[in-house]
Amino acid sequence: MVRLCDIGEKSVVGALIDRIGPSGDIGLGDDAAAVRLGSRYLVASTDLVTRKTHFPKPTTPFQMGWMAAAVNLSDIAAMGALPLGLLVAMGLPRETELETVEGIADGIGACAEQVSAEYLGGDTKETDDICLVGTSLGMVRTDGILLRSGARPGDLLAVTGDLGLAGAGWAEIEEEGFHPLARKALLEPFPRTKEGTILSASGCVTSCMDTSDGLAMSVHELARRSGVGFKVDRRALPVHVDAREIGDRLGLDAMDWALHSGGDYQLIFTLNPEGEPRLRSMLGKGYTVIGEATREGIFLEDGDRRSFLEDKGFEHFRW
Amino acid sequence: MVRLCDIGEKSVVGALIDRIGPSGDIGLGDDAAAVRLGSRYLVASTDLVTRKTHFPKPTTPFQMGWMAAAVNLSDIAAMGALPLGLLVAMGLPRETELETVEGIADGIGACAEQVSAEYLGGDTKETDDICLVGTSLGMVRTDGILLRSGARPGDLLAVTGDLGLAGAGWAEIEEEGFHPLARKALLEPFPRTKEGTILSASGCVTSCMDTSDGLAMSVHELARRSGVGFKVDRRALPVHVDAREIGDRLGLDAMDWALHSGGDYQLIFTLNPEGEPRLRSMLGKGYTVIGEATREGIFLEDGDRRSFLEDKGFEHFRW
Repeated sequence: MVRLCDIGEKSVVGALIDRIGPSGDIGLGDDAAAVRLGSRYLVASTDLVTRKTHFPKPTTPFQMGWMAAAVNLSDIAAMGALPLGLLVAMGLPRETELETVEGIADGIGACAEQVSAEYLGGDTKETDDICLVGTSLGMVRTDGILLRSGARPGDLLAVTGDLGLAGAGWAEIEEEGFHPLARKALLEPFPRTKEGTILSASGCVTSCMDTSDGLAMSVHELARRSGVGFKVDRRALPVHVDAREIGDRLGLDAMDWALHSGGDYQLIFTLNPEGEPRLRSMLGKGYTVIGEATREGIFLEDGDRRSFLEDKGFEHFRW
Repeated sequence: MVRLCDIGEKSVVGALIDRIGPSGDIGLGDDAAAVRLGSRYLVASTDLVTRKTHFPKPTTPFQMGWMAAAVNLSDIAAMGALPLGLLVAMGLPRETELETVEGIADGIGACAEQVSAEYLGGDTKETDDICLVGTSLGMVRTDGILLRSGARPGDLLAVTGDLGLAGAGWAEIEEEGFHPLARKALLEPFPRTKEGTILSASGCVTSCMDTSDGLAMSVHELARRSGVGFKVDRRALPVHVDAREIGDRLGLDAMDWALHSGGDYQLIFTLNPEGEPRLRSMLGKGYTVIGEATREGIFLEDGDRRSFLEDKGFEHFRW
């Protein structure tokens, strides 16, 4: 008798893939599914979050709603899709205060509005714990869809924005002096839909995904799906200055958060080096080149030193 | 301090609508949301079901998966949409057996296959109770979308298939001699997507919804949304012969199930009387005319006797 806690989330997903498909035009292995409609793909993603498992104690109802929207919008951002709409099903305990539900609704609405996604509706049902399930819908030209496969040796590896602040938020969440920016980074991650559509339009991005499970696991995933290796330049990683400061204060290494903590919800991608000037002109300082795709092996380089980059980060069912 | 259990599901949904839209092209009041894409609508619906609240004890994993798919596909059927795809997010307790998850996956896949919907993927997360959240996607021509509003006095009122068998299944679920057909009707409802697309194509259907909350509540809902009344001919109601038999055996009135029990997942609709011959030629015995839209009042007629049709059926948070 095999139970889920014995095998971990990735194995469960693997068993499910073996069982039922998927039969869409783009498979389960990417951040979102895609169905071809003429010259475009309809891109869709669904994610389930619960108060008990996904929301640290200080999370406000507004932030729960924001998170439920953001994680799903991040998934379609990773495919390069323009957000179209968002649905959210809510499971709510009987004793929930109406004010809490209104806060959740406000958070959903605020996040959707930030990225110009239409809130399309949802469902409310009774459950034992607050459970929010968003579904995001987006559109992308068939020749502009971003997948996890597609990186080639010689491509540059890059990431949007900064890293490590969500990890700093996790580390400090029980502390009195909880850093307001770290809290916001952790509990109100910003879906990079704007960056995703620009990466798609640039024509030079060869693979992409979001860093919801942390940078290291994302690098390994891109490597597996593209059949390449990577070298990551430790010194180039855009660790957020406040994450460094919090790390110094707590006696912890912010680099660990940048590499292995989930929650930053940046986009990690590879690009054809010839396209780099064009992408730079489109995105400016919105991204940082952090390494290069190679034939094999996944290494972290720090000047002359080279170490293996551990495939370590989030996994559910083993918490 | 207002809690959800004090106000009921409909009020919660009302409060949410006031709060966040929806901003889609078709509102929250219908079975599904719709976004216009050129000459078609993308139609989407999401529904959350949990083992504790929605699945009676004898429900198999296969049936849980089927149900999660079916309730969502029924919602887009009610809009007249051709099924495009289905996503399902699963919340699963750590102790769940892998076999259970595979059964759920098989049920999802089987139901999606029956209506030619692509299974697009999903999500798995840890929760305390099994929680399945489907999202169905469909397409319908903008001039063929079916809404709850649109009925006019003089329109015929009709329903697909038979009624009451799911209610009989509920009534008998704890019994030894549980009727196999009633069990199936209750636990593996068939989404009427084929009928929905035909109703849409007929050009004579003026309003439509599914009977997931029971026939009586659906009639009241069509009346409210269309601004009409209805008279329903009790003798015309297509009560399933096996529901009658089970009712006789249990000393209960199958007519009560037909009117007030949820779970039959038929489509109830109004049609322009002039279009009736055409619809009959398209759907044959697949539907029954059960009444007529009027200016006001919602009555059940039984020969010369006329009574008010009670707005009674399912409601969550008050269970």
